[in-house]
Amino acid sequence: MKPVKISEAVVRRLPLYLQVLNDLHKRDVQTVSSQELGNKLDLNPAQIRKDLAYFGDFGRKGIGYDVTYLIEKIRQILKLDQPLFVALVGAGNLGRALSNYTTYLKDNMKITAIFDANPSIIGTQINSLTVQPIDALKETVIALNIRIGIITVPAVEAQSVADRFVEAGIEGILNFAPTVLRVPDDIRIHYADFTTELLSLAYYLDKEGNEENEPAMD
Amino acid sequence: MKPVKISEAVVRRLPLYLQVLNDLHKRDVQTVSSQELGNKLDLNPAQIRKDLAYFGDFGRKGIGYDVTYLIEKIRQILKLDQPLFVALVGAGNLGRALSNYTTYLKDNMKITAIFDANPSIIGTQINSLTVQPIDALKETVIALNIRIGIITVPAVEAQSVADRFVEAGIEGILNFAPTVLRVPDDIRIHYADFTTELLSLAYYLDKEGNEENEPAMD
Repeated sequence: MKPVKISEAVVRRLPLYLQVLNDLHKRDVQTVSSQELGNKLDLNPAQIRKDLAYFGDFGRKGIGYDVTYLIEKIRQILKLDQPLFVALVGAGNLGRALSNYTTYLKDNMKITAIFDANPSIIGTQINSLTVQPIDALKETVIALNIRIGIITVPAVEAQSVADRFVEAGIEGILNFAPTVLRVPDDIRIHYADFTTELLSLAYYLDKEGNEENEPAMD
Repeated sequence: MKPVKISEAVVRRLPLYLQVLNDLHKRDVQTVSSQELGNKLDLNPAQIRKDLAYFGDFGRKGIGYDVTYLIEKIRQILKLDQPLFVALVGAGNLGRALSNYTTYLKDNMKITAIFDANPSIIGTQINSLTVQPIDALKETVIALNIRIGIITVPAVEAQSVADRFVEAGIEGILNFAPTVLRVPDDIRIHYADFTTELLSLAYYLDKEGNEENEPAMD
C-alpha cells in the first residue's frame, strides 16, 4: 500500500487522535462524532473532519466514525502495525523516565537497547534491558534492526551520538538535548527539547503581567 | 511596551534563535548573517529574515544582525527579561531530569517549587529545593508568584494536577503526561508528550521498509 501524502501538522495530530480513540475503544465505544473528538482534543470539528478525510470517506453523517476502523487506519499510516525498534543513548534521569514512558506505547514501537558512556551506569538494568557501552551502538543497532534513535545526553555530547546513529544506519532521531544537530537530509530528526516548549509558553502569558495573584514579596 | 503579534510557528522558533545567538555571544561573535543562522538551524535564510523582521528592520545588508541586540529583543518578546517562576508536580525520574535541565535556562525562568504526592519523596532535596506535599501547591504558587506549572505525573493523575494549578491561578501549563487536559480558555497549555514526537517520527521513516540493514532474525 502506498500511503497518502499528509501534511506535517496532520501527522503530529495523529498520535493525539490515536490516544483518544484508544481510550474510547477501552471503554467499548463503537462510534465517535467529530464534535466529540473535538471536545476531547480541543480542536475544531471541521478541522478533525478534514484531517480524517485523508484516510477515506468513512465518517457517516449522524453516526460518526467507527472507532476500531479509525484506530487501525491511523496505526497503518504511522506504521505502528509493524514492530519498530528504538535505541536510547543517555541512561540518566531523562533516559530512565523515557524508558518507563514507553510502557504506555502498547503499540509495536519499543525501546530495545539503551547505551551510556558512564562506566558506573553500563551494565545496570533498566526495565529488563542492560545498559550497553556506547561503543556497542553500531553493532547492536544493526543486529536488532533498530530504526529510531533517542538522544538524552547533555548538549555537548549530542552531536557525536547523532553521528554514531547515522553511521549505524538509523533512519529517525528524537533529540532531547537542548541543541541543534546536523544530520544528512535523508535522516528525519525531531526535537523534543522541553526548554523550547517552556520558553515559547512564556510568550503567551498575560502580556501586562498578572497582578491578580498578589505576590508575597517583602 | 505592547508586544507585536507573532504567529505560533515563529514563537516556537524564537527559543532556537536564542540558543544559537547565546552560543555566538559566548564566543564573542558580534554579528551574524541570516545565512549563518540558517546553516546552524537548518532553516531557509529567507525564512529567518522574515521571522526577524517582526523585531524591526535592524539587519544590515552585507553585515548581518547584531547578536547582542537580537538576544535582548528576543528575550523581551519571550518575557525572559523579567523573573518568571515555575512549579513542577511529579518528582519522579522525569521531574528530576527536568529540574536538572533548567540549569541550562540561565535566563530568568526558574523552577522554584517541586511537589509530589508520594510520602517517601516529599521532603527529599532536588537541586536545593525540598519536595513539598501536593496539598501545599495552591498556597506556595500564590506565595512565590509562580506563573507556569509543569506536570510530570502519570496520565491518570494529570487532570487533577491541572485543576489544582488552575485553582491556584497559574497562567500556563507544560504537560508531559501522555493525555489531553481540559483547562479554561485563558490558561495556555503546551504539550511536551514525547510519545507524540516519537509516533509522528515513525511516519517519516522509509515507507517501503529499509532492507539495507539486514536484521539478525533467526
